[in-house]
Amino acid sequence: MSLIKTTRELSDWFESHNRKNMTLGFVPTMGYLHDGHLSLIKKARADNNLVVVSIFVNPLQFGPGEDYEKYPRDIEHDYKLAREAGADVIFNPDAGEIYVPGSSTEVEVKGDLTKKLCGASRPIHFKGVTTVVNILFNIVRPDRAYFGQKDAQQAIIIKKMVRDLHMPLEIVVCPIVREKDGLAMSSRNMYLGPDERKQAPALHRGLQKAHECFMSGAGDCTRVDKLIGIIRQEIEAEPLAKIEYIEIFDGDTLENIESIEPQRRALAAVAVRFGNTRLIDNIILSMGED
Amino acid sequence: MSLIKTTRELSDWFESHNRKNMTLGFVPTMGYLHDGHLSLIKKARADNNLVVVSIFVNPLQFGPGEDYEKYPRDIEHDYKLAREAGADVIFNPDAGEIYVPGSSTEVEVKGDLTKKLCGASRPIHFKGVTTVVNILFNIVRPDRAYFGQKDAQQAIIIKKMVRDLHMPLEIVVCPIVREKDGLAMSSRNMYLGPDERKQAPALHRGLQKAHECFMSGAGDCTRVDKLIGIIRQEIEAEPLAKIEYIEIFDGDTLENIESIEPQRRALAAVAVRFGNTRLIDNIILSMGED
Repeated sequence: MSLIKTTRELSDWFESHNRKNMTLGFVPTMGYLHDGHLSLIKKARADNNLVVVSIFVNPLQFGPGEDYEKYPRDIEHDYKLAREAGADVIFNPDAGEIYVPGSSTEVEVKGDLTKKLCGASRPIHFKGVTTVVNILFNIVRPDRAYFGQKDAQQAIIIKKMVRDLHMPLEIVVCPIVREKDGLAMSSRNMYLGPDERKQAPALHRGLQKAHECFMSGAGDCTRVDKLIGIIRQEIEAEPLAKIEYIEIFDGDTLENIESIEPQRRALAAVAVRFGNTRLIDNIILSMGED
Repeated sequence: MSLIKTTRELSDWFESHNRKNMTLGFVPTMGYLHDGHLSLIKKARADNNLVVVSIFVNPLQFGPGEDYEKYPRDIEHDYKLAREAGADVIFNPDAGEIYVPGSSTEVEVKGDLTKKLCGASRPIHFKGVTTVVNILFNIVRPDRAYFGQKDAQQAIIIKKMVRDLHMPLEIVVCPIVREKDGLAMSSRNMYLGPDERKQAPALHRGLQKAHECFMSGAGDCTRVDKLIGIIRQEIEAEPLAKIEYIEIFDGDTLENIESIEPQRRALAAVAVRFGNTRLIDNIILSMGED
């Protein structure tokens, strides 16, 4: 596996690996890899001839007071894990390599989609995400790019950017990977103190209970307010949990809904703070296959 | 030559023409082709294996009250001219083909560059241009794209977008093509009444006189206010001309300058209205080669 820092070296690597006649799978990450990331890399490995993993903590998607500076980094460990999972290249550029001097071009998905859920408390976050993902797609030019369902809103927004701008690639969204007790894997879990860590699985438990209610077919269990109540009750039982949002929207458009129609899928999503640590989780509510 | 209306047909055409092993030159236009456009197509023909010309009057780059509806269109004539100039494909999509339903993703070059000159009177114009050009580049995936120096600010902005977003292509800017009397070719020249048409070459005459002064090496002829005065005098002599702007900026960054440094190039640019018709023109002021 090659560790590459510049776009120039990456070009050369492509040249020398006959990239033109290969399919390329791309897994963009901010590093500090966990089993969630590794599931994306393995899926990319299974689907493509070449696999590129990027590790880039993108300053543009962090707001003032967020954890850009202290975002966890461990490139040596990442390198080892990515290689074992099947990556051919780790692309680990500096910020100056991605954002050329004087850079001022922004790619933004406008509308409700980017203002709801995490967009409400993180107003510049998704513009930073779409801009860097657009740049990375232009540099890597993948046939397929892999994102986790954990960041459900991000995946929906990136799919929309790709469709709206006719970017020539496929977005593949992979299931959430969880710890044994149900906590969704996240690089930010390492911030949790022992008591917070014990209480954190309440996010998933609440979402699960709402899912069970919904799947039971009980009449009022398609109602969004009822389902939100179930989730809230479970999370509020944990004294260290501060709920930022619990929401249920249409699963494709994030439009507001009052109840979940039989033919539609809904996204139930939560953001909860434990001290300074902000955790998110979600589940798809759908009667069909998903 | 093929006339293609959809991205799907264009993909198929690429497939059947072994596009992967060819270089592709792209000339994006709004149609109503004149010798200026044809010079771009001929240059693309000389540089590449395949040449695609798009004809798309982009609603996003016209403000309210601008001439989107009445912008001149003549696809039959365009088809003939583009073929003679060497195009392999005319791509002539409907607006619904470029902007998918619910489309809301914008690509914007932020900063002074898009607010000056034409950006001052056309505040959404360049955002519309960068968004559609980004989309067209993603659809056509050219190795080189050709733009006219006539739209100097547009060319600078598109170059910046491509550099900032690492888009994998080269932007080639070609010289202004003029009528015999010096009027820069433009699809909008057909709007001019006979008296307006007679007075319109004053834009170029003014720019030429500034250029002559600058090249003379006379001491104060590197001063921006002096050069602007020369241009203004020439254009104001025409009674139907209403000056929108006469400006001289750094030729690469459009930064404000007071005088033209020996090692730099400057852009002298004008926008002038004759009745409802808005004309633009420009010239590069540089002691070096250009």
